[in-house]
Amino acid sequence: MALIVQKYGGTSVGNIERIKSVAQRVARFKAQGHQIVVVVSAMSGETDRLIHLAKQIQAHPDPREFDVMVSTGEQVSIALLSMALIDLGLKARSYTGAQVRILTDNAHNKARILNIDETNMRNDLQAGYVVVVAGFQGVDEKGNITTLGRGGSDTTGVALAAALNADECQIYTDVDGVYTTDPRIVPEARRLKTITFEEMLEMASLGSKVLQIRSVGFAGKYKVKLRVLSSFEEAGEGTLITFEEDEKMEQAIISGIAFNRDEAKITILDVPDRPGIAYQILGPIAEANIDVDMIVQNVGHDGMTDFSFTVHRSDFAKAMGILKKQVAPHIGAREVTGDDKITKVSAVGVGMRSHAGIASKMFRTLAEEGINIQMISTSEIKISVVIDEKYMELAVRVLHKAFELDHQV
Amino acid sequence: MALIVQKYGGTSVGNIERIKSVAQRVARFKAQGHQIVVVVSAMSGETDRLIHLAKQIQAHPDPREFDVMVSTGEQVSIALLSMALIDLGLKARSYTGAQVRILTDNAHNKARILNIDETNMRNDLQAGYVVVVAGFQGVDEKGNITTLGRGGSDTTGVALAAALNADECQIYTDVDGVYTTDPRIVPEARRLKTITFEEMLEMASLGSKVLQIRSVGFAGKYKVKLRVLSSFEEAGEGTLITFEEDEKMEQAIISGIAFNRDEAKITILDVPDRPGIAYQILGPIAEANIDVDMIVQNVGHDGMTDFSFTVHRSDFAKAMGILKKQVAPHIGAREVTGDDKITKVSAVGVGMRSHAGIASKMFRTLAEEGINIQMISTSEIKISVVIDEKYMELAVRVLHKAFELDHQV
Repeated sequence: MALIVQKYGGTSVGNIERIKSVAQRVARFKAQGHQIVVVVSAMSGETDRLIHLAKQIQAHPDPREFDVMVSTGEQVSIALLSMALIDLGLKARSYTGAQVRILTDNAHNKARILNIDETNMRNDLQAGYVVVVAGFQGVDEKGNITTLGRGGSDTTGVALAAALNADECQIYTDVDGVYTTDPRIVPEARRLKTITFEEMLEMASLGSKVLQIRSVGFAGKYKVKLRVLSSFEEAGEGTLITFEEDEKMEQAIISGIAFNRDEAKITILDVPDRPGIAYQILGPIAEANIDVDMIVQNVGHDGMTDFSFTVHRSDFAKAMGILKKQVAPHIGAREVTGDDKITKVSAVGVGMRSHAGIASKMFRTLAEEGINIQMISTSEIKISVVIDEKYMELAVRVLHKAFELDHQV
Repeated sequence: MALIVQKYGGTSVGNIERIKSVAQRVARFKAQGHQIVVVVSAMSGETDRLIHLAKQIQAHPDPREFDVMVSTGEQVSIALLSMALIDLGLKARSYTGAQVRILTDNAHNKARILNIDETNMRNDLQAGYVVVVAGFQGVDEKGNITTLGRGGSDTTGVALAAALNADECQIYTDVDGVYTTDPRIVPEARRLKTITFEEMLEMASLGSKVLQIRSVGFAGKYKVKLRVLSSFEEAGEGTLITFEEDEKMEQAIISGIAFNRDEAKITILDVPDRPGIAYQILGPIAEANIDVDMIVQNVGHDGMTDFSFTVHRSDFAKAMGILKKQVAPHIGAREVTGDDKITKVSAVGVGMRSHAGIASKMFRTLAEEGINIQMISTSEIKISVVIDEKYMELAVRVLHKAFELDHQV
C-alpha cells in the first residue's frame, strides 16, 4: 500500500466525461489498496473566462481580488471530482487551499508555499477517504486567498507529496512523458524512462513545458519521486524524474534536445569594459520586470566589449526602448542592436559533466549544415546556442541524430 | 454618518455594466460619509449553471460538495464588485462567508447562521474600506463550506446588519418596494411606504416574493431596520419594514392583497373523527418532505369529518399517491380528492386585529362576483381563501378596490 499524490491538469478535467474518467482511474488505484490525494486544476478554459471577466472591470485587476476570483475555478473542479468519486461509491472529500491550510506568503498572484497542515488530510486518508485538493491556491496568515500563479497546480501536487511524505507524485498531463525532443519535429524522438531533476529543470526552462519549473525545483529539494504520465492513455509508465544520478544504470551522455522559440536577443556594442557595467545595463531591465535568460559577455579589447542577452519576445520592444533611450547614452555605448527572429537550441544531459567533446560535436554538427551560431552559453549539464529561427527544425533534427537519441534504450 | 448594509441580488449584479452601476451607487453612499457593508448574490444564471454541472455528475449531488461548488458563484461576485469599487478609487475588500466567519450549523444546502465574527469587518470599516461579503454562504465549526439555501443572501444581509448593529439594511431588488398587490394584475396598486414585519411575513409567504421569508423573521427578531429598494431606479425611498406597529401614524386596516398560484388542494373525505387522525394523515406527507400550507378541518358529523390541506403544485401528484395508497386504506377514509387548478388569495393587515367585519366584507365582495370560496383559513392579521384559479385576477382586483387600497396615502 502506497500513498500517492496524483495531479490532473485543466485538460484532464476539461469536461464532465473527463472528470468521470479521472474518477475511474482514481478508483482503480484505490482498489489496489493505495491511499490517494488528488490535486486538480480548473477545467480548461475556466481560468481564462474568469480573467476575462475581471479585466472587463479593471484592466489591471486588484491582485487580492483577482485571487479571490480565479481560485473559484479549482474550487468547482474539486467539488465535481469529489461528486464523481462519491457516485462511484468511494468516500471522498474536497479541500480548498484555505481548508487544507496551504499557508503561503502574501504575494498575491504568485504566492509561495510556506507550510502545509497535513492533519486533516492524514485523518481522512486513514478513514479511507480520497482527498481532493484544489491546486494553484493557498491562504496567507491573515486568511486572504492567494494563488501560486498559472501552472501552480504542479507545485501544489509536489508540496502535498512532500508534506505527506508520499511514495510518489504523479503528474497527469496530455503527454505521456518527457521526450528526447519534440516528436512533432523529430518523429524518432523517444520517451525517456527516467530523467534527472537537473536535466528536467533545464528541459523545462528551455521549452519542453511538461512541468512547471518551480514544481521540479521543489520536488528536488524535498526528494519527491515525480512521475509524468498521460491522463488519456491507460498503459504506460510515463517518465520518472529522479534526484539521484546513479539511479540510471547506464548513463546517457545527452538526454534530450530542447528548444525555445520565444526569445529575442539584444546586443549593446562597444560598451566600456569596466566593473559594474553589467549592472548598469541589466538594472533598468530588471526594474521594468523583464526577465533575462542567456547573458553573454566576451573578453574585451581596447577597453571596450560587447554585451548580449536574451529576453522573452513579448518584452523585446520594451527592452530595446529602455536600452536605446536610457542605458546606451548613459554608459556611452556605441549602438544597440536586436533580433527577435532567433531560436535557442540546447543539448541537455548530466552525462556531459564527465564527457569532453560534447560541445565540439554540437558545433561541428551545426556547422556541417551551414547553421551559424550567434551566441553560446553553457552550464554543467547543458550547452545552448542561439541560431536564426529558420534553422530551428533542422538543428534539432541533426543534433537528435548526432547524439544518437533515437537509438538508446 | 450611518452604518448601512446593502444587499444586491443576482439580477442587480447580472453583468459587468450592472456591477459597475452598483459600485457607483455604493460610492455615492460612501461619499455621504456612511460606512457601507455590501452583500452580493451570484450573477444571475451562475448558480443555475453550477447546479447543472453538478447534476451531470450526480443526479442528487453530495450535499457537502454541492456547497463547495455553488458557493463559488458569490465568490466571483464579491471579487468583481470589489475590483469595480477599487477602480472608482475607493478602498474595498471582499470576504467569503468563511473569511468573515459566518458560523453556521452543518446542515448543508440549508444551513442556519449561528454566529458572526464582526471583528475584521469592523476594523475595515474603521479604516475606510467598503466591506463586500458573499451572501448565501457560511462555514461550519469544522471549516466546511455551507450554504443557506437559495435566496439566502437576504438572510446574510440581515444577519450582518444585526451583528454590526447597522442603522439600516437595504435590500436592492428589481422592484422598488412592496406593493398593495401585484401591479401587473391591478395597475392601481400602490407602493407601501411602510409595512410591519408581521404583514411582510404574511405577504412574503403568500406569494409577494420580494424578500426571502427567513430574512424577514430574522430582521424582526433582531430589530433590524429593513428597507426594500430598486437597484435600477435612482430615486425612491422603497418600502421600510418596521417592527413596531405604532410607527405607522395612521393604521391601514388592510395593507395588501397577496396571492399564490403555486398551490394545490387535497381533501380526504369521511375520515373517522378521532384524536390523532390529523397526524396519521400528515405524518407520511411530512416524511416525504412535502411542505403543507393551509390545513382545514371542519366539525365532524356522525363520527366522520373531512380533512383538507394545500401543498405546492409540484408535490401534488406525490402527495395524492401517498394518501391514496398508504393513508386512506389505513385510516379507513372514503375517498381522496384533489385539485391543482386553485389559487390562494389573502387580505393582509395588522389593522384587522382591531376591526371586525373584514372577513365578511371579503366574502361578500367575492360572492358579488360569483366567486365560490373553497377553503378559508385565518390568522390574526390575514384571511386566506382558496378559489378556482380562473377567478384569481378578478378576485385580486375587486378585493383591492373593496379595501380602498388604491386610495390610501
